[in-house]
Amino acid sequence: MIAFGDILAAAQRIEGSVARTSLAKSETLSALTGVNVFLKFENQQFTASFKERGALNRLLTMTAAQRAGGVVAMSAGNHAQALAYHGQRLGVPTVIVMPRHTPNPKVEQTRVFGAEVLLEGATFDETLGFTKRLAAERELTLIHPFDDPTVVAGQGTVGLEITGDAPEMDALVVPVGGGGLIAGTSLAAKSTVPDIEVIGVQAERFAAVCERFHGRVGRPPAAFGTVAEGIAVKSPSALTLGMIQRWVDDMVTVSEEEIESAVYTLLEVEKTVAEGAGAAALAAVFKHRERFLGKNVAVVVSGGNIDMMTLSSLLQRGLVRRGRLVRLRVELPDVPGSLSAMTAILGELDSNIIEIVHQRAFGAASVSVSLVDLTLRMRGEEQADVVLRALASAGYAAQILE
Amino acid sequence: MIAFGDILAAAQRIEGSVARTSLAKSETLSALTGVNVFLKFENQQFTASFKERGALNRLLTMTAAQRAGGVVAMSAGNHAQALAYHGQRLGVPTVIVMPRHTPNPKVEQTRVFGAEVLLEGATFDETLGFTKRLAAERELTLIHPFDDPTVVAGQGTVGLEITGDAPEMDALVVPVGGGGLIAGTSLAAKSTVPDIEVIGVQAERFAAVCERFHGRVGRPPAAFGTVAEGIAVKSPSALTLGMIQRWVDDMVTVSEEEIESAVYTLLEVEKTVAEGAGAAALAAVFKHRERFLGKNVAVVVSGGNIDMMTLSSLLQRGLVRRGRLVRLRVELPDVPGSLSAMTAILGELDSNIIEIVHQRAFGAASVSVSLVDLTLRMRGEEQADVVLRALASAGYAAQILE
Repeated sequence: MIAFGDILAAAQRIEGSVARTSLAKSETLSALTGVNVFLKFENQQFTASFKERGALNRLLTMTAAQRAGGVVAMSAGNHAQALAYHGQRLGVPTVIVMPRHTPNPKVEQTRVFGAEVLLEGATFDETLGFTKRLAAERELTLIHPFDDPTVVAGQGTVGLEITGDAPEMDALVVPVGGGGLIAGTSLAAKSTVPDIEVIGVQAERFAAVCERFHGRVGRPPAAFGTVAEGIAVKSPSALTLGMIQRWVDDMVTVSEEEIESAVYTLLEVEKTVAEGAGAAALAAVFKHRERFLGKNVAVVVSGGNIDMMTLSSLLQRGLVRRGRLVRLRVELPDVPGSLSAMTAILGELDSNIIEIVHQRAFGAASVSVSLVDLTLRMRGEEQADVVLRALASAGYAAQILE
Repeated sequence: MIAFGDILAAAQRIEGSVARTSLAKSETLSALTGVNVFLKFENQQFTASFKERGALNRLLTMTAAQRAGGVVAMSAGNHAQALAYHGQRLGVPTVIVMPRHTPNPKVEQTRVFGAEVLLEGATFDETLGFTKRLAAERELTLIHPFDDPTVVAGQGTVGLEITGDAPEMDALVVPVGGGGLIAGTSLAAKSTVPDIEVIGVQAERFAAVCERFHGRVGRPPAAFGTVAEGIAVKSPSALTLGMIQRWVDDMVTVSEEEIESAVYTLLEVEKTVAEGAGAAALAAVFKHRERFLGKNVAVVVSGGNIDMMTLSSLLQRGLVRRGRLVRLRVELPDVPGSLSAMTAILGELDSNIIEIVHQRAFGAASVSVSLVDLTLRMRGEEQADVVLRALASAGYAAQILE
């Protein structure tokens, strides 16, 4: 375990080289939830996540000889960028090992800081094994993303800043993967505002810490993916779990849909890009709003590194859920001109057709009927009903495809 | 025209009720352009644009009787939200007139502030005519988005804040629609830092101010649309044009693709949501980087209100331009199993198929050949070449579809 003094020391050490990110009340999110929501924008860090705090604290506590020898980490994500960036700033040779099929943007975002990026291993264990062998062969210092007291102390500076800026907080909601962020942050928060409640949030599909916290022994289901990649950690370390059991009040989970919706909301309302993990804490506030009603709740937006491909898909799915993109199946008489007549109705209602599939062979109830599947852009949620009614009153059988 | 003192007075008047947004150097954008890029985040305003400055200054300079009588404006955009928000705060009845086919999110974002929103008119002139008649009938004060000295003085506080925070700026780049923002901002900037260069940016498709500035008399082409809706203004006012001719050093235009790319870059690099108009100034810095090389350039990110549907399409187009989404046409022998054999190659190369159209009747060179059109997700730009080479060496004729 670490002591509060370690976090104070970390704060002094990293000051000026890591952003003191803003904590700001969101009036709109507060109105939407009934909770006084304060967002801690760790996505404003230079490499867009809190991971710089721990990585830099670790680098600054190494001896000159260790630093000259270089560091290595296994990460395709925020820890990699954080270490590469501060490694370059401090002249520490940095090697990052990523799984073989890592998307190029992640590789580039780390290479740009001068790190040597190696793509090795198809599984977590293969990549980890390679990293350990490499560390031993090249005498590099292996920097673990969370199973390291100095890293945890660095992450704790998030909590120190929150209670320093706003001691009136009633609760603090923090995303949890390996547990480094919440371990340090809960210690810092409870040491400065003893009554503050600290709640950890995991993705349902990767809920190892939550399961352990609640004393459930069964392994969580081996999920194959989550939009919250940054907290998709299979198990915490003894260090972080011990601190969580001591300092954290509760652990909850959020679904994929809840996380996606929180990313969408942060984009639409706050004009800020959060990655899935970064939006998980806000998702939990929406899900459990009754427990926080009227309270001052600090929500850590831990990072903003989301691939634009993922963000684009997430937006599309959000538009579908909000009824802004709708798929309709319409039965048409199989005669010339019928498509034009039907689509004229859609045009009058400002429903923009973005895709159309017109088929004759399959699924139609009669040989004289053809089916048209349309993807439509709608002005708003209630427009689908308007369109369905208009089609029905013009004699078309139409249904929404889920 | 207005005087510098009007802007100083506006700054005092609106202080505390409008955000003093941050001006921050972007290290990554500076590295990408060779220009020291400082972003002025007007998208951080509560209603996500600078328009609050002018609207609030206008409301605060009305008499109590005028305020009690209410205000009206014609706007489907940022001026509407700004006026509705501050009208509600100050207890001023606010009516907003929008064109009939305005998307629902825009209507909702204004209604949420208690404004009465009326959807009237299919064309600009119809909507404007209705607004004027309504103002006369109900004795409402009509608040123009830019043809109003008090509004212009309010917008000028953006310039005051920039030179106040960073007098070392060499240039200031500002998006221009009706010209209210640049009129006030250029006066404020030149009055505080006389040597500063001020450059206005318009969308190519709506370049009325730019044309007039350069003394071109021909009307600009009547364009039907731009992603930079916030600056899609057909003509400036005499007030703004006069100030622009006096204080602005140059006017440039940017293309739709350049604007879209700047929105994408702000999202990916800065983790911030800019609307098209809000990204136009950054687009101009990318386009004209040689003129700004090594200089300190303040870039006004004027707003962040972009519909999520538009943002989603923009991201998709950006992914296509960056080679992350690729359409391929492949010739296949028309025998069972051939699709599986070909797609196995794609799978090995981590190219994720997101859409596939397999056709026999059209376009194939031989009756024994069928054509498959695939939309693929790629890990990075160079992967398309890798895929094409792999297909070629396995004997498949394949081409990229633009």
